Amino acid sequence: MNDLSRASVRETLAPSAIVESVAPQVDGGRFAIKRVVGEEIVVSADCFAHGHERVRAELRWRGPGDTTWNGLAMEPLANDRWSARFVVDRIGFWQYGVVCWIDHLAAWRDGFLRRTDPADLRVHALVGSDLIAESIANAEGSAREDLIQWARTLREESDPQKLHELAMDDSRLELAQCHAPRSGAVQSLSLPAWVDRERGRFSSWYECFPRSMSAEPGRHGTFADLEANLDRIRSMGFDVLYLPPIHPIGRTRRKGRNNSTLAEPGDVGSPWAIGAREGGHTAIHPELGTHEDFRRLVAAAKERDMEIALDIALQVAPDHPWVTQHPEWFRRRPDGSVQFAENPPKKYEDIYPIDFETRDWRALWQTLREVFEFWIGEGVEIFRVDNPHTKPFAFWEWLIASVRRDHPRTIFLSEAFTRPRVMHRLAKLGFTQSYTYFTWRTTKAELTEYFTELTKSPSREYFRPNCWPNTPDILAQQLRNQPIEAFAVRLALAATLAASYGIYGPAFELGENRPRDDVSEEYLESEKYELRHWDVARAGRIATLAAKLNAIRREHPALQSDWSLAFHATDNDMLICYSKRSGADTLLVAVNLDPHNVQSGWVNADLAALGLADYGAWTVEDLVTGERYPWWGSRNFLMLDPRRAPAHVFAVTPGHP
Amino acid sequence: MNDLSRASVRETLAPSAIVESVAPQVDGGRFAIKRVVGEEIVVSADCFAHGHERVRAELRWRGPGDTTWNGLAMEPLANDRWSARFVVDRIGFWQYGVVCWIDHLAAWRDGFLRRTDPADLRVHALVGSDLIAESIANAEGSAREDLIQWARTLREESDPQKLHELAMDDSRLELAQCHAPRSGAVQSLSLPAWVDRERGRFSSWYECFPRSMSAEPGRHGTFADLEANLDRIRSMGFDVLYLPPIHPIGRTRRKGRNNSTLAEPGDVGSPWAIGAREGGHTAIHPELGTHEDFRRLVAAAKERDMEIALDIALQVAPDHPWVTQHPEWFRRRPDGSVQFAENPPKKYEDIYPIDFETRDWRALWQTLREVFEFWIGEGVEIFRVDNPHTKPFAFWEWLIASVRRDHPRTIFLSEAFTRPRVMHRLAKLGFTQSYTYFTWRTTKAELTEYFTELTKSPSREYFRPNCWPNTPDILAQQLRNQPIEAFAVRLALAATLAASYGIYGPAFELGENRPRDDVSEEYLESEKYELRHWDVARAGRIATLAAKLNAIRREHPALQSDWSLAFHATDNDMLICYSKRSGADTLLVAVNLDPHNVQSGWVNADLAALGLADYGAWTVEDLVTGERYPWWGSRNFLMLDPRRAPAHVFAVTPGHP
Repeated sequence: MNDLSRASVRETLAPSAIVESVAPQVDGGRFAIKRVVGEEIVVSADCFAHGHERVRAELRWRGPGDTTWNGLAMEPLANDRWSARFVVDRIGFWQYGVVCWIDHLAAWRDGFLRRTDPADLRVHALVGSDLIAESIANAEGSAREDLIQWARTLREESDPQKLHELAMDDSRLELAQCHAPRSGAVQSLSLPAWVDRERGRFSSWYECFPRSMSAEPGRHGTFADLEANLDRIRSMGFDVLYLPPIHPIGRTRRKGRNNSTLAEPGDVGSPWAIGAREGGHTAIHPELGTHEDFRRLVAAAKERDMEIALDIALQVAPDHPWVTQHPEWFRRRPDGSVQFAENPPKKYEDIYPIDFETRDWRALWQTLREVFEFWIGEGVEIFRVDNPHTKPFAFWEWLIASVRRDHPRTIFLSEAFTRPRVMHRLAKLGFTQSYTYFTWRTTKAELTEYFTELTKSPSREYFRPNCWPNTPDILAQQLRNQPIEAFAVRLALAATLAASYGIYGPAFELGENRPRDDVSEEYLESEKYELRHWDVARAGRIATLAAKLNAIRREHPALQSDWSLAFHATDNDMLICYSKRSGADTLLVAVNLDPHNVQSGWVNADLAALGLADYGAWTVEDLVTGERYPWWGSRNFLMLDPRRAPAHVFAVTPGHP
Repeated sequence: MNDLSRASVRETLAPSAIVESVAPQVDGGRFAIKRVVGEEIVVSADCFAHGHERVRAELRWRGPGDTTWNGLAMEPLANDRWSARFVVDRIGFWQYGVVCWIDHLAAWRDGFLRRTDPADLRVHALVGSDLIAESIANAEGSAREDLIQWARTLREESDPQKLHELAMDDSRLELAQCHAPRSGAVQSLSLPAWVDRERGRFSSWYECFPRSMSAEPGRHGTFADLEANLDRIRSMGFDVLYLPPIHPIGRTRRKGRNNSTLAEPGDVGSPWAIGAREGGHTAIHPELGTHEDFRRLVAAAKERDMEIALDIALQVAPDHPWVTQHPEWFRRRPDGSVQFAENPPKKYEDIYPIDFETRDWRALWQTLREVFEFWIGEGVEIFRVDNPHTKPFAFWEWLIASVRRDHPRTIFLSEAFTRPRVMHRLAKLGFTQSYTYFTWRTTKAELTEYFTELTKSPSREYFRPNCWPNTPDILAQQLRNQPIEAFAVRLALAATLAASYGIYGPAFELGENRPRDDVSEEYLESEKYELRHWDVARAGRIATLAAKLNAIRREHPALQSDWSLAFHATDNDMLICYSKRSGADTLLVAVNLDPHNVQSGWVNADLAALGLADYGAWTVEDLVTGERYPWWGSRNFLMLDPRRAPAHVFAVTPGHP
């Protein structure tokens, strides 16, 4: 009776437990955190109640297709912080939250430890037996029998010593707690997580223009020419082959060589000026081949465990079919003209922007979605999106969610070189990976600060960096007129600092370093406006290094994710040193930032970050050269000759052989 | 026509601006930030839009009684962070938020700066005149005329040079921007702020038991005796006089001296064992006086710009009238008894806890609210709440909000010495001030870490510290069996580190340092269980120091708030040095933590934190002793003799006299 009454009272007004500060989360759950299949989500929260009540907390989660929640008891850390973790084992949309409730049985048992007076103990035993009765109501079978038995003996026993032993029965306490009503239970918001396939986190990109891949100089390259290069690119260890737009190129206001606004006869124009009488975003430039040829290329890549990534640029050349079929998709100026596209200071006289604000926006958005659907139908699962920041955020949030609903394996790379908040917003609303400022971060201080932000700040939950030393648009300052050793430095940094990175391939392999002028970042004779013939046979140095680094990346999980990055002090600003770990796999990387001179100095290694706190002696084996060095303690000597190697990539093992 | 059509399109689908990370806020707006009248709320947020759109942002706020929102244009800082501030000039509940919209006129003007081709300029001028037309629709009078004129000339002018000058007309641009439709406007959540009167932030408390204030040893003190002490307490500069419960004290299981469970005849019992046949929480202990006497005391305090703070302990003695009038308010154990109150390891055999979960909770809660209402009716505006953490959070959130609705001047001090999350939750849900761990923080490292957390972490938005060196419950370790100099050190720290602090007065003034035993923090012959006679005439040392420190606190705004606190390095761990600033008022405090020995060392002052970055020479004047020292640069010498003074409280001025 007594227990029943108390139970019912609790239903009328149970003081509730509290859950605060659930982590991880992005903007209070407005956006999803990102993970890949096989990763853990470690959830923590402040869980407590008033007074001397004790609480229990449970992590709840569900994945794609789950009709019920999974539950796992959370463990207390310190200061009312509780934690538990689960593994996301499927691609798709997940949710997780925290439930916390008041554990009257635990508080009752605490009371037993404080009591000594025999009469008091007997009354407190009755209190316990009433509480246990609440659990009995929810229990069945042997558990029920066991609890009934426990409650009865607590009620009947009078010997203080025996009562004490009864109350200390941990297994029965646990049993009663499992079946107890969850008094004052509260549940946090359910927080979203998006889980990608592994390549969303770990990928090595190679960009090239198929039209420049022919064996003979001057001949327009084809998909077949590119196919003939697959084995060589694969031998360098790249697994994503990214192609600039492959569609028909506009003729109206076509750009000439070196971005001239006057094309001469024979000029091929910019692939980003999409669309001509031959078709638009779903057509293929006739000189590259047919859809059949493209599907063969995609298949040939798949055979080599490579993927083709397409460039999606939502803009048109003036003679794109849409311009005549859907004039309302383009904003007219007062004189009836359409303002050409701009990305200040760049001007794209050969390109019209699309008016996402058109009255006909629903039809427009659907058509743009169908562009993605079309290429997914052709076997493409990775898209590099051109300038997403110049389109409305709402469009991307809708498009990515809607494409993923049917095609959850799809990966979107955001090519937004713009202000931090804008880049982050695009990452939050769904882009799988994002281009970064790495392209312009060159000194030890800059690299340390930027990669600490990328790997340690809360933004790491949604912003996955993809680091590029160069692109067709950007001949970076530190590569302009610089020797091949400068390219080797940037390649070594990108491949070991970032789990995802890429190079604008042939130009990078050949150390293309000629700027168009002194101010812009454009290349001289940029491939964007003309055919180039790349004599990759000459390109041994970078190809060999890339092959080596990508092989190390594949063999070492430490390089396949970013969060474990730790920097180690050196006494020479030209030497940057950092480590990455995954389980027992620990790599220590040292890069000589000076492509011209031998640099040497002392590294002051953070042994704790290397998992070596307990070791004096340790061994580093350079995975590039195979050399081994016995090291001792934190302070060790480094020397790097840029003519020999831009970096040490050390495998770290405790002790000396 | 053209502009109208575009305007209407925008209404159908305007890409919206973005507002993120509005600060300050507590748990996403679930709880209010705290301020006092006259303070500023500095609001900042990330405001941006996609692409090259420009945005404007406005801070909106409203205070008690405002029927409309106030608005103020925010200023851009860096990286899309915008900021503006407003002053809260009234007690009560305020709200603030951020509105952000796309500024097409600014983007249009940016375009004008990039254009050179005359024909292109003319078309772009027409675009501008269309945009201005949208503003004209919202403008009146001369503004409207001015804009019409601007739009017309932009439309008619053909000379590129003149067009450029027209477009660069800042005042008209501003005029057009003010009247432009707020395209893609978004508003953040409205965030709550509670504004107290100044004493919510800056207060000096003195606690004493009225029953011990009689002039003759052994006689039970009265309100009249306390009134006779008001001038002396006021002369020490305290402005809040806090009294333990003044209600009739239970006789059943009354506690004897030194917390004995067996009271002897004549034992007065604990004031926290509230209630007897004479009445409960609204009654007054007959030996203290009448309600009339109490009202006279309150008035006498007011005349001296002091306030009486009452102790509200929501618990009862077994013979409190409620126990018989409302048996359902007390949870019976299976044997029909009521479990006495506990606050482990403390046991209160003379006290029953109230069952906040009672079926009759609505009546209970209302009755408890009426207790506060009653004493507010008697002129009390400050309540020190006893052990709020042992009652449900929901009760306090309701009670404080509901009392404040009618009595917004009310101040609630939370006496919750418990785990950090619980103390913070109570502060979030509305307590004006909170007791802190200062009582147990003694070393330089402990004080530096704790006060940095209190004054720099996000919790400062809602957690207002009130620091006590001692209380009737706590004879702190560093005072046990220690000389009066130890009390002087703790007083100096509390009065200069915290804008609100208090002492358990007579015992502190007289350096009461005798522990009841070696383990507990209880006093020997604790005033909680017996009458004490305090010969305050002997108490010159502390009284003089308190008078001095409180006078400095009143004269120097720097000591009246907490956020400006900055610590300065010293080379002696017994010397702690810190500064506080308010406008031009800068104080530098140095305390000798060692009550036994002279300590000296060098301070390495952070001149920037002192506003002296541009000065080599500066002067410090000790406001306690009046001595002046010419200092130079950051490194200066300190020496403190505990027999002379526990601390320097320096007023800082640039240059030498």
